[in-house]
Amino acid sequence: MTRSQSAPQGIVAGSIPLFAGHPAPELLPVRGIGRALAGWDGRPPLRAFNYGDEQGDPKLLDFLLARLNDTEQLGIGRENLMIIPGSTGGVAMLTRLLTKAGDTVLVDAPSYRDALHIFRDQGLVLRALPIDDEGPRLDALAAELERLAAEQVRPRFYYVVPNFQNPSGITVSEARRRAIIEQSNRHGFCIVEDDVYSDLRFAGCAPPSFYALARGENVLRLGSFSKTLAPGLRLGWLVGGSRQIAAFVASGVLRMGGGANPYSAALVAEFCRSGAWQAHVDWLRGQYQKRRDVALAALAEQMPAGVSWTRPAGGYFIWLRLPGAVDVDELERRAQAQQVYFANGRGFFSEPARGRHFLRLSYSYLSHDDMRVGIGILSRLIAQLAG
Amino acid sequence: MTRSQSAPQGIVAGSIPLFAGHPAPELLPVRGIGRALAGWDGRPPLRAFNYGDEQGDPKLLDFLLARLNDTEQLGIGRENLMIIPGSTGGVAMLTRLLTKAGDTVLVDAPSYRDALHIFRDQGLVLRALPIDDEGPRLDALAAELERLAAEQVRPRFYYVVPNFQNPSGITVSEARRRAIIEQSNRHGFCIVEDDVYSDLRFAGCAPPSFYALARGENVLRLGSFSKTLAPGLRLGWLVGGSRQIAAFVASGVLRMGGGANPYSAALVAEFCRSGAWQAHVDWLRGQYQKRRDVALAALAEQMPAGVSWTRPAGGYFIWLRLPGAVDVDELERRAQAQQVYFANGRGFFSEPARGRHFLRLSYSYLSHDDMRVGIGILSRLIAQLAG
Repeated sequence: MTRSQSAPQGIVAGSIPLFAGHPAPELLPVRGIGRALAGWDGRPPLRAFNYGDEQGDPKLLDFLLARLNDTEQLGIGRENLMIIPGSTGGVAMLTRLLTKAGDTVLVDAPSYRDALHIFRDQGLVLRALPIDDEGPRLDALAAELERLAAEQVRPRFYYVVPNFQNPSGITVSEARRRAIIEQSNRHGFCIVEDDVYSDLRFAGCAPPSFYALARGENVLRLGSFSKTLAPGLRLGWLVGGSRQIAAFVASGVLRMGGGANPYSAALVAEFCRSGAWQAHVDWLRGQYQKRRDVALAALAEQMPAGVSWTRPAGGYFIWLRLPGAVDVDELERRAQAQQVYFANGRGFFSEPARGRHFLRLSYSYLSHDDMRVGIGILSRLIAQLAG
Repeated sequence: MTRSQSAPQGIVAGSIPLFAGHPAPELLPVRGIGRALAGWDGRPPLRAFNYGDEQGDPKLLDFLLARLNDTEQLGIGRENLMIIPGSTGGVAMLTRLLTKAGDTVLVDAPSYRDALHIFRDQGLVLRALPIDDEGPRLDALAAELERLAAEQVRPRFYYVVPNFQNPSGITVSEARRRAIIEQSNRHGFCIVEDDVYSDLRFAGCAPPSFYALARGENVLRLGSFSKTLAPGLRLGWLVGGSRQIAAFVASGVLRMGGGANPYSAALVAEFCRSGAWQAHVDWLRGQYQKRRDVALAALAEQMPAGVSWTRPAGGYFIWLRLPGAVDVDELERRAQAQQVYFANGRGFFSEPARGRHFLRLSYSYLSHDDMRVGIGILSRLIAQLAG
């Protein structure tokens, strides 16, 4: 199988990549960034080129501080905020600085595959909480915490994608958030809230963030420009207690590198300052909503009985549960033979066997037509396998 | 003390920052990058925006592969190379993936301060090898390896800045390189060669790299665009065995982030492809050589007897040894009172006390005049303290 040079990350040319959690090319702000570059008039500002302040680009910090206090009512000061090289960079950094090999962290089942990968690279022990439509089940959390207490293990943190979770599309309800914060205070673990999809909400109101509900106590909140601007710029932000942020800012990697991606950060600061980011996000929301609607309609029309799926109110992903007779590995083999690629559910569980009847569909990348065709092929294969 | 918004990373406005290991603003390729952006014609290529291949930007890989085989005779294939977010990103990545807390690594004394910081963040045990004019002393290496063998500890790697070391300006001789490689084979540790200054050689020939001498066995070689282009772009490369590179490429952070800084990488690929990088490096070499000459002349003219310093054949740094009667902390206090800032030697040693008679001067950032004035002030203060 050859990979196309022009298709991004792992997309086979001519295939239907239902797995692809990327923005579609036509949703990337190529012209807008071109205009920001033009604003620089062929002479980017000097601060884009040299080592910068470890906390991050000062103009981008100013912009984000105002926006987060305005839209998310976080009530934070500059000492609570830093720029990071994508939420990836943030997860990698806090994993490196908050944990050591053998430490335990709590994750959802399912959870974000690449975060699980980073935790495994670090040698962490993962304890998984099954989720339902409102987020992690509280009985499972209580039972897990009891087991850990009996083993005299204090988990270092609970990692959660609170809104439109990757892979399930689920949003953790406010009640669950409050209950989890209560447990985190009782058991002394931190909450790492990786909230990269919240700006892509199609309807309704977001519950307050874990950070807001906990009044900033013991919560680290990650945000990103990857979903609402462009992943290739590698920029995000981290909100946390002033002492924790100061410790991260003083870490070896930032000392050595001079803050997160000064060039991209200066460019994005220019883009944001002009109001272009907010306009782009508003437009994107409508685009992704249409794509979700097409995907949900295709599923409703074409999927055989016995298949169920989530109906996300934002973000990129739909989580599909197969009938008990259908194993996802066999479905994957048959789908790939027809050039349809989805994300196998096994990858999203710390115990992969739990994912054997699940798969993730992404509607962020495909055209409406490819989405219908891809879901049609999947539907027929599932019907065949379900016998 | 207030920090200037326009001065980079930690530079006090109006001061003489002899510590600053940054390119001077006038040495940054602002116009050249502006021309590369103009080559994009207000419409950067799509691959700059999305998640990229985990190995790195394909055009930048092509360029570097040809250049490294041509100028460094590495004899490598594409499977031996990956793009990293600055050599920082590489050091952080390989520290995370090759070591765990409590592991031992070998470093030079002195060594690069921010690498020591990253190793400490990871909880590593540092064993330091004193250096002389040809690099780490072989008797010290043998003795350290014997001690470690007696303790049944195998060091994970030896970290070295082989050319124009930060902070000493020293280049490790070919004989030392060969002897160290022999020891690494005998004792089973890896060599991490952080070679970010080698393109800034003013005269003479570079010894072959550790990687070339070891024929790629058990050596990881880091390079960077930070010194020869701009730190703010956060780009470098890593050369290693194909299995190790494949393992790094498959790590959680790269999976999640889609390769190192796709936007910057596409921009730099455009800059390099046009031949602009090589022209810029050739020009930079002359600029830095002049600055070094000014610094060495000022030291020769103004320093009192009893002070000695290195004469680097490239790079950014001069390492100064104070008379035994002069403590660097006291000198630092007095110099700061006169707005002269240098890098205190203590920061470059895993045991800081070893640095109490040393300091690092950098000639990369200052104007010729400021260099003379700064060195003049330091010279008078040292003469006073030496009594």
